[in-house]
Amino acid sequence: MTIDALAPGATIGILGGGQLGRMLAVAASRLGFVAHIFDPDPASPAGQIAATFTNAGYDDLAALTRFARSVDVVTYEFENIPTAALDAIEAEAPIFPNRDALAISQDRLTEKRWLAELGLTPAPFAEVEDAASLTKALSEIGAPAILKTRRFGYDGKGQAQILTPDMAATALADMAGAPGVLEGFVAFSCEISVIGARGQDGQVACYDPGENTHESGILRTTQVPARISAALRTDAVLVASRILTALDYVGVMGVELFVTPEGLIVNEIAPRVHNSGHWTQDGCMIDQFEQHIRAIAGWPLGDGSRIADIEMENLIGDDMNRLAALRAEPATAIHLYGKSQTRAGRKMGHVNRILSR
Amino acid sequence: MTIDALAPGATIGILGGGQLGRMLAVAASRLGFVAHIFDPDPASPAGQIAATFTNAGYDDLAALTRFARSVDVVTYEFENIPTAALDAIEAEAPIFPNRDALAISQDRLTEKRWLAELGLTPAPFAEVEDAASLTKALSEIGAPAILKTRRFGYDGKGQAQILTPDMAATALADMAGAPGVLEGFVAFSCEISVIGARGQDGQVACYDPGENTHESGILRTTQVPARISAALRTDAVLVASRILTALDYVGVMGVELFVTPEGLIVNEIAPRVHNSGHWTQDGCMIDQFEQHIRAIAGWPLGDGSRIADIEMENLIGDDMNRLAALRAEPATAIHLYGKSQTRAGRKMGHVNRILSR
Repeated sequence: MTIDALAPGATIGILGGGQLGRMLAVAASRLGFVAHIFDPDPASPAGQIAATFTNAGYDDLAALTRFARSVDVVTYEFENIPTAALDAIEAEAPIFPNRDALAISQDRLTEKRWLAELGLTPAPFAEVEDAASLTKALSEIGAPAILKTRRFGYDGKGQAQILTPDMAATALADMAGAPGVLEGFVAFSCEISVIGARGQDGQVACYDPGENTHESGILRTTQVPARISAALRTDAVLVASRILTALDYVGVMGVELFVTPEGLIVNEIAPRVHNSGHWTQDGCMIDQFEQHIRAIAGWPLGDGSRIADIEMENLIGDDMNRLAALRAEPATAIHLYGKSQTRAGRKMGHVNRILSR
Repeated sequence: MTIDALAPGATIGILGGGQLGRMLAVAASRLGFVAHIFDPDPASPAGQIAATFTNAGYDDLAALTRFARSVDVVTYEFENIPTAALDAIEAEAPIFPNRDALAISQDRLTEKRWLAELGLTPAPFAEVEDAASLTKALSEIGAPAILKTRRFGYDGKGQAQILTPDMAATALADMAGAPGVLEGFVAFSCEISVIGARGQDGQVACYDPGENTHESGILRTTQVPARISAALRTDAVLVASRILTALDYVGVMGVELFVTPEGLIVNEIAPRVHNSGHWTQDGCMIDQFEQHIRAIAGWPLGDGSRIADIEMENLIGDDMNRLAALRAEPATAIHLYGKSQTRAGRKMGHVNRILSR
């Protein structure tokens, strides 16, 4: 489905009030829209600065219905939205990106099967439901491998490495009976991600691929341009474009890719704005947040061409102690999320650093 | 006075909830601060999106006192703040820019005298209190000239042209007894403005001067770079720098200058972020709003170097009917202010257009 271009004063409903919802809300208001955040946390980063804030749980179907009735379009900052919540919303308002994108990205196994059917290359994978299927999966894929829950994983959570077959039982116990998928290790030279966007008119635009580094399973930095060949850069953009079009997608998507000697392997897709796209705030005229709002509002996509070589660094936990040094850095923009409590592993903000213009 | 660098979670109080207050509030929250807007209008553009909003009048000293007690620093989006309001606030919280800057810029006559004492060149001027002083002023300055009220003028309001001496009586009657100043016409080739910033450490940074066009007394476009010589560009920045330093200023200031064959004439100064600096949002890494927040928060100034040739166009009144065409323009960023009612002469938003990179 598509909608007509929203006029100034229309309301954008956003499920999730974390930092992504916050930056989406800012982009929405910059374009003259009213942002309405829905989040269970009364002190959510986005709830503080959105024009309207519903503080309720995702199981509160009455609140979700009221929320959906009060907005012109609904989007979200995270993919693990309960099905019943989506049903309640979809009865009242259009949702972008659509539910196919959610259904696929909510489940690692479904996602990998879908990517393979599309002719793309995910990491080697096999379904795991119990000890017998894990043994079978390990015999197919070999160790080392990673056992992951099919659903609800993020930032390295819900994962266990199986370096040798004797680690299988412990890894399976960690899953606590949750359906899983075994993924083969991929020998990659680097991880890149493409932030792609697709408008309601079917137009696709992708930002220049960024190169990611991780620490303890959490994104640490994204550097753009990625240090890959022009041919791979083109391939990466084509992979993202194929995914967006196959899903009849509307909005921004993050596509994580491994660069290997045999080509690109799709690690995972996220049907939303993505941490590895934060560099666009200071590296492009129209950043990923505004691009997403433009797309779901029925506007044409904006100019996302890259204007500088740039590095994004996440500020995680105690990185906040480095603020005095960071604000004195030249050509560095600081973005903080308004979280009152600093905790280890918690994303508190990020900086974008111009490397050269 | 100066303050120590504010930490994340500190609160920035902003007097005035129009579009300037709105864009200041967004910049404050991006840096991890809490924005608290004070405005008499319950539907103010900034009040909608600030974390905290006090809806009260500038004559409500109790509300102003509560507001000031609840914030760490106070700034403002307009210069015509009543003295009693400033007294109430200053008893509770630091105000930046300081009151000297406000006192000078609130009164056209005081401002011109101060600029002349500083060795800068304002337009020819003379004080007007009544018919006799107007006659004397006209004999000194000659016609054509412009009679302006000393206080409370903006966007061409509170002004009357005196093209020939026989128009003097009507112009004086229009002033309704308000103290005035007669300004001589300046034969200028163009009007430029410098957006300057000064930090609490005394560091000064100026954005590249922009060239302004007006329509019906309202700013229409700003184009950067201004089409002036490199020598004039340097002169313009030095003029702004001298003003900032002489005032021991903290924050961003707009300085409007006329370019004449005899050099630069200072038209007026505005002790706040300025419409002619909106291009910095898409033409620089750190825009004027963030630069202002950085300065008043005791942070070092950020990188305001220009990264493109760019044009800002205000969207005034019925310009909103052009939105469909504007959003389809390449390399154009749209900024709307969330005003629900469109009126003739009302600033509804602006666009920034990249001319070349």
